[in-house]
Amino acid sequence: MNFSSKYLEEAVHAFATLPGIGRKTALRLALHLAQQPAEQSRSFADAVIRMREHIQPCKQCFNLSDGPLCNICSDKRREESVICVVEGIRDVMAIEDTGQYRGLYHVLGGVISPIEGVGPSDLTIDDLVGRVEKGGVKEIIMAISPTIEGDTTIFYLTRKLEGKEVQISTIARGVSFGGELEYADELTLGRSIAARVPYQKNG
Amino acid sequence: MNFSSKYLEEAVHAFATLPGIGRKTALRLALHLAQQPAEQSRSFADAVIRMREHIQPCKQCFNLSDGPLCNICSDKRREESVICVVEGIRDVMAIEDTGQYRGLYHVLGGVISPIEGVGPSDLTIDDLVGRVEKGGVKEIIMAISPTIEGDTTIFYLTRKLEGKEVQISTIARGVSFGGELEYADELTLGRSIAARVPYQKNG
Repeated sequence: MNFSSKYLEEAVHAFATLPGIGRKTALRLALHLAQQPAEQSRSFADAVIRMREHIQPCKQCFNLSDGPLCNICSDKRREESVICVVEGIRDVMAIEDTGQYRGLYHVLGGVISPIEGVGPSDLTIDDLVGRVEKGGVKEIIMAISPTIEGDTTIFYLTRKLEGKEVQISTIARGVSFGGELEYADELTLGRSIAARVPYQKNG
Repeated sequence: MNFSSKYLEEAVHAFATLPGIGRKTALRLALHLAQQPAEQSRSFADAVIRMREHIQPCKQCFNLSDGPLCNICSDKRREESVICVVEGIRDVMAIEDTGQYRGLYHVLGGVISPIEGVGPSDLTIDDLVGRVEKGGVKEIIMAISPTIEGDTTIFYLTRKLEGKEVQISTIARGVSFGGELEYADELTLGRSIAARVPYQKNG
């Protein structure tokens, strides 16, 4: 790419460091900001700086937070006896968006993956065990992707939590609601049949 | 979306104002920057601010520039007698990337489009006429998209330049190099046949 402005070039490079943003998209975004009124580009940049300055991991659940304790952990109306274990922050947001869950979370920061060099010590597993050992936790819900790495992580976690008085569950797996059966993948469909549940009229 | 951080929410909103960036992508980008080392997020934001502060339209060709005159207009080795008229800055970059053109440019800032409310006065047409009237320009190359709006703009420009001693040309239109003929659209293929040129052995 031939740039007529070195500042434009720097901005394009900056955008191209973002995940999933190629050179062409980076150019489109940078050109947009270059041609906006100055205060608009400024407020865009300020939002990024302010976020990075204030954001921190919640010291209890490792969700992103504006203070030491996130707004879910510090919400007294939430059920403190249930912890939903997830891989990342986006999973917390996805579950919160359902409006179906009123317990707390624990963000692992990924899943165990020997191929990608992620071991148990890279995740917040010890912190989760610590939360259980402090007492008051009745149930741990594993809301982790149904992949080999995810299942390995669940297996590892259940071993770590063995002997502690806590019930462990995983989120239900099966065909998607509203999905066409013929388009479900074989594994999901096969396991959905094997793991069939009694029909409930109001289910 | 349920945000656990209002600063994250603001950053996501900021990203979502960019063209072609939806809420999901905005979240991915903001989360990436939230989890980077502070200096990295800071330098990203700085690149945006610095670009917006320094960038300005070249007073001659309206290309983006770090100074009053862009680096193409101020390059004494370029042919000053040829002006390539383009819609936008990205077209300048695309043509520069070919390495085939050594003249100057003129960025119109769009094409005439009554539907989108863009009239001749919204473009830098008068400035182009001014450049021709100053003298020394031998050829104007219209490198404008072969669309109805583009053709209208070329027509308008040629009318404006009527009577001035300048040769006007348009970039060649036809089937793409390396493209399969059967996949070319009918209009392009039809016009390519109508506008056939004598075969040149070393063409």
